[in-house]
Amino acid sequence: MDLEREYRAKTRGSAGIFARSRRYHVGGVSHNIRYYEPYPFVTRSARGKHLVDVDGNKYTDYWMGHWSLILGHAPAQVRSAVEGQLRRGWIHGTANEPTMRLSEIIRGAVKAAEKIRYVTSGTEAVMYAARMARARTGKKVIAKVDGGWHGYASGLLKSVNWPYDVPESGGLVDEEHTVSIPYNNLEGSLEALRRAGGDLACVIVEPMLGGGGCIPAEPDYLRGIQEFVHSKGALFILDEIVTGFRFDFGCAYKKMGLDPDVVALGKIVGGGFPIGVVCGKDEVMCISDTGAHARTERAYIGGGTFSANPATMTAGAAALGALRERRGTLYPRINSMGDDARARLSRIFDGRVAVTGRGSLFMTHFTPDGARRISSAADAAACDVHLLHRYHLDMITRDGIFFLPGKLGAISAAHSRADLGAMYSASERFAGGL
Amino acid sequence: MDLEREYRAKTRGSAGIFARSRRYHVGGVSHNIRYYEPYPFVTRSARGKHLVDVDGNKYTDYWMGHWSLILGHAPAQVRSAVEGQLRRGWIHGTANEPTMRLSEIIRGAVKAAEKIRYVTSGTEAVMYAARMARARTGKKVIAKVDGGWHGYASGLLKSVNWPYDVPESGGLVDEEHTVSIPYNNLEGSLEALRRAGGDLACVIVEPMLGGGGCIPAEPDYLRGIQEFVHSKGALFILDEIVTGFRFDFGCAYKKMGLDPDVVALGKIVGGGFPIGVVCGKDEVMCISDTGAHARTERAYIGGGTFSANPATMTAGAAALGALRERRGTLYPRINSMGDDARARLSRIFDGRVAVTGRGSLFMTHFTPDGARRISSAADAAACDVHLLHRYHLDMITRDGIFFLPGKLGAISAAHSRADLGAMYSASERFAGGL
Repeated sequence: MDLEREYRAKTRGSAGIFARSRRYHVGGVSHNIRYYEPYPFVTRSARGKHLVDVDGNKYTDYWMGHWSLILGHAPAQVRSAVEGQLRRGWIHGTANEPTMRLSEIIRGAVKAAEKIRYVTSGTEAVMYAARMARARTGKKVIAKVDGGWHGYASGLLKSVNWPYDVPESGGLVDEEHTVSIPYNNLEGSLEALRRAGGDLACVIVEPMLGGGGCIPAEPDYLRGIQEFVHSKGALFILDEIVTGFRFDFGCAYKKMGLDPDVVALGKIVGGGFPIGVVCGKDEVMCISDTGAHARTERAYIGGGTFSANPATMTAGAAALGALRERRGTLYPRINSMGDDARARLSRIFDGRVAVTGRGSLFMTHFTPDGARRISSAADAAACDVHLLHRYHLDMITRDGIFFLPGKLGAISAAHSRADLGAMYSASERFAGGL
Repeated sequence: MDLEREYRAKTRGSAGIFARSRRYHVGGVSHNIRYYEPYPFVTRSARGKHLVDVDGNKYTDYWMGHWSLILGHAPAQVRSAVEGQLRRGWIHGTANEPTMRLSEIIRGAVKAAEKIRYVTSGTEAVMYAARMARARTGKKVIAKVDGGWHGYASGLLKSVNWPYDVPESGGLVDEEHTVSIPYNNLEGSLEALRRAGGDLACVIVEPMLGGGGCIPAEPDYLRGIQEFVHSKGALFILDEIVTGFRFDFGCAYKKMGLDPDVVALGKIVGGGFPIGVVCGKDEVMCISDTGAHARTERAYIGGGTFSANPATMTAGAAALGALRERRGTLYPRINSMGDDARARLSRIFDGRVAVTGRGSLFMTHFTPDGARRISSAADAAACDVHLLHRYHLDMITRDGIFFLPGKLGAISAAHSRADLGAMYSASERFAGGL
């Protein structure tokens, strides 16, 4: 039986619900990437490492809530904290104590977080970071790397997908103020930044390309960019929404010798509840203080209705609290599992793939003949995406292993070496059929 | 004892925590409007109509989670549904069943919601609505009304606060594509829209100015705008984030004879959990379908990591389910309580105030001598905001009644006529001291 028929046969309940979902929702989904062919299954419950769909199929999940769930799905420590908070209300609309708890933890682990502002999503966090940079410097140009994904705000929606010089969307109005630089290519990047001339407000970059292909930045690259940016009086902004608290208890920049002005956080720090965090040096963050600056000089930034809501703050504090407690064993364990996955998958696919990533994040790229090194999103975009989708759909269908097709995988505290073993076996079968 | 000293005396615990909060957070808060002088109290718990602060003071709350909590704080029906969902996971990162339940309810109540996309905040919802309008029409100009608040996205951050011709923020780059029109002034608005010429993509307007002063739109005004906009091939977008499911089970536009192309929802529809909704006519929403449109033509809109997360979807479905069940009694009751509040407060302040609003939303404006009518944000901005703050702080301090100082009040299902009576008595005392 062919793969797609097999998938359809085991997900009949999902097929029916998704057909209804198409009547209500654009493309049947609320997030474009959640769609895959022939249709995505519909989850009924998630616990630990597992997703269970409406047909009762159980999947070992490596998507893990867009990589937010480093403790696995619905961990007891976070759940009981949130349940306790629900009895005390989930949106106070006022200052509250759980916010203090979360901020104390973040401040203790992220040196750059001299001041913090909570927002509701990563999209908002980076939008505000860029606005602060423009307001503080009085300059307009935002620079980002080819393949860098920083959410949906207009100024950041450029050069996300290959080819990088084609607009990402209709309806954008401020693209001329965003320049794109080649990732992990310091000379090329500095050249492009020099062309931006005196109007550079900031560079925004991830320490590891997330959506762009799970590709770590070379520390020298980031240090070189930071040095140039600072020499121009512009801001160096790190988007650590994917990487923050992922490789260690704190940010990825810590071990790279970097000194960012502003850091965006999200995902893990909310314990799986909606969050975005924009934090940074006092002298930068204060530009958003409406009490200290005139209206035309301040950076008018959120919150929003749901900012610092006590449910999210409680979940985040509980998740980070658990991570802090278990940091000595948890991070080394899942990081080494990631190393193992990169090594084993490379061997299994013997010359056909490059497995990128760092720590507990990994991604398998089916490389074109000969090319084995993936150091930019352009390298990743040259790989065989259809084959990657097929590989993932194969494991979904035949092994009960879920990667969001085409995306990187995240190992959580809930995964075991035996889970990896099952994934290697599945990969061997798939590789054998190529 | 003077008011501020009295406030300080009863909120000593809050003072200590807020002093620490200032060390962590810009201005001590994550949302500018949550700050008020001398410092905001810190909430420990919220239940039904009450907020309880860390000093044990209990407040009858009219702020109600930025007006999101029409059922009161932590209603049992919503809480138990969410608790059940927590055991099944709070971020699946996939399609899920609670999304279907919420969409079925919204679709049944909002005729324009032919297609729905869930996002994480109201800011995101309106940002996407504007992008869809620009992508669909191929035009650039967004028109909004003076005093209209539509969140923090760049294109909407214009003419929010008086004076309307001064930029709201540093660091904005696309202000030239946003035009502002005078609220409830059809001739003036059409004149400004005509000046925008052929480049008008959309008008975005609330059926009742929320943040701008709780001022209902005249139905003829909105109908006239809609007619003009449609005659130009542009989109008519309603921001019903405050008004949706507030006055009746559905949107405010229903009884105004309007036919919006796109509607933004939020607040109430998430049951107090983070949500934004952009919904609208099939023929418009489909511009965001990445499967149906080329990259440069589609409107690239979210989602985001937390979109349609099962905790929010479950809370929203439970809240709207409860509202649907009780609609026959709940809405008439709280709407008539609002009518009563407007009438009684007007009498109590005898000629010194105009009390605006509709249904369960009301706001007291201390008008300049002579002027009693408030039909635009400019009228509201001419009122005595300091006196309004003092009135609210007076009730917070002396009566345990909480309005976010300077903001409109929301009556929820948890409030009683006796609560209103206590608020009238407090207002009488304050009025007597003027």
